[in-house]
Amino acid sequence: MFQHLPDRVSIYEVSPRDGLQNEKQIVPTAQKRLLIQSLVGAGLRRIEVTSFVSARWVPQLADADALTSDLARPDHVRFSALCPNAHGLERAIQAGIEEVAVFLSASETHNLKNTNRTIERSLMVFEEVATLALQAGLRVRGYISTVWGCPYEGKVAPEQALRLARKLLGFGCYQVSLGDTIGVGTPKQTQDLCRHFLAEFAADRLALHLHDTRGTALSNALVGLELGIRDFDSSIGGIGGCPYAPGAAGNLATEDLVYTLHGMGIDTGINLPALVEASRVAAKVLGRPLPGRVHQAGLPVLRG
Amino acid sequence: MFQHLPDRVSIYEVSPRDGLQNEKQIVPTAQKRLLIQSLVGAGLRRIEVTSFVSARWVPQLADADALTSDLARPDHVRFSALCPNAHGLERAIQAGIEEVAVFLSASETHNLKNTNRTIERSLMVFEEVATLALQAGLRVRGYISTVWGCPYEGKVAPEQALRLARKLLGFGCYQVSLGDTIGVGTPKQTQDLCRHFLAEFAADRLALHLHDTRGTALSNALVGLELGIRDFDSSIGGIGGCPYAPGAAGNLATEDLVYTLHGMGIDTGINLPALVEASRVAAKVLGRPLPGRVHQAGLPVLRG
Repeated sequence: MFQHLPDRVSIYEVSPRDGLQNEKQIVPTAQKRLLIQSLVGAGLRRIEVTSFVSARWVPQLADADALTSDLARPDHVRFSALCPNAHGLERAIQAGIEEVAVFLSASETHNLKNTNRTIERSLMVFEEVATLALQAGLRVRGYISTVWGCPYEGKVAPEQALRLARKLLGFGCYQVSLGDTIGVGTPKQTQDLCRHFLAEFAADRLALHLHDTRGTALSNALVGLELGIRDFDSSIGGIGGCPYAPGAAGNLATEDLVYTLHGMGIDTGINLPALVEASRVAAKVLGRPLPGRVHQAGLPVLRG
Repeated sequence: MFQHLPDRVSIYEVSPRDGLQNEKQIVPTAQKRLLIQSLVGAGLRRIEVTSFVSARWVPQLADADALTSDLARPDHVRFSALCPNAHGLERAIQAGIEEVAVFLSASETHNLKNTNRTIERSLMVFEEVATLALQAGLRVRGYISTVWGCPYEGKVAPEQALRLARKLLGFGCYQVSLGDTIGVGTPKQTQDLCRHFLAEFAADRLALHLHDTRGTALSNALVGLELGIRDFDSSIGGIGGCPYAPGAAGNLATEDLVYTLHGMGIDTGINLPALVEASRVAAKVLGRPLPGRVHQAGLPVLRG
């Protein structure tokens, strides 16, 4: 079963962007800062803090410039931001962000509904964004959504995502994060998908971005882990609910992932009690209990 | 990773007993019947319907005799009940129950706190219960709790549970269900534990009873599955919250397990949409949303 576990895993925290973007409420900038500070304090070193998208499209992140302009950042921490176009990139550069993320969907219909562009158009835009970002000395990361399934098209052939991964890595992305956007993936499918990708790309070029909509996110992550993936996206408290299922679980909860990895003897560089505390900060910021399991139950008190 | 997946898995549904026993409210008998009927309707064939324990100890299950006396049961379905002693067994026989479950903890302190008996005393009582039950033509199943960890003693050596499994199988139990009672287990630990048990016992003698308190239940189940375990306990909607963490997740949710198994091409004999419907019945019976993920999100609507 587990024969190839690594000593260390890198976690890419998405709550300030992917989490808050899917919330109905608009969280005040000061509260976002509080959340990000508690994430940094827990030892997270890669945090996607916002998106430089139009405030009209995502009012929850309309404060991207204000938030990032004076965000305290220790040297060992890297902040990234989603950038939908060259204008977003300009704003990111202005704000001193050192990494940008570009994104598209493996399925045409989801890409159109989510971004109002065809996949081909997205590729053109992001080739330009990536080129400009690299010229400006930024790192570029790519997201591919709906890799496990699309809410509009159903099953998605692995070849569709593989083709886009080739493109994004070709544009200079250091890593492509494969998303189970609607949380439909089951572990055997994840095994098949990972094998497809790992047959073509080095493991450090790949990350998994899993949603826990149907309870399978952690299981899918562990499949990836055993097959060689060392990079996982997650969100404190599991925030980032699926817009298609109000009230349902969102992203894989960072503290559930870290609890499990530490229990398996795998280092993450994260302080787990501080991380659970950060999940409580997130719950306070959002004013509701969050779906993460460790967040709800707390760490075990084993007296032995 | 997954190389030894079976064609079929057997699920032992514990919600009417393990689920409701941990609820604060007392569910009316007619509502319990409704829940059990919806579970049978979804295709579950092994259901632990109640416990013949003293009403003083577990008021939630005080209606055990009334509930079981006229519970409609199709031929292919087996109802079981927990029996703490010979008196409970008499009641179970009276009620026409065909299978009883006996139970003890791998850790002395938990056994004492949970049952007011030492482990040695439990073994004496259950040897008698098992003998009498077998004489009366009933099947007997055994539970061992706190195998992954004890809330009072912390880590529990595998040898403690192995010794009890030997005893229970020696008493004539057809199967022993290993419990992660407080939901602390992580997958590597599960791998180690399963290997210990499978080195000594045939896989069909073993079942896993996992709690999702820290989000690891499904991952642990899949580890057992790959290693040869074919029997899993679960609870509709994930009911059966941990008494040590109010509001936290309880048992592994039956519909999350079945969603995952079906997605991996493994048959359970269960109708998944009817099972999700049963989780809605359970939520109605309890008057609150339940922690199961598929229960909350529903099945994916994949139009492709």
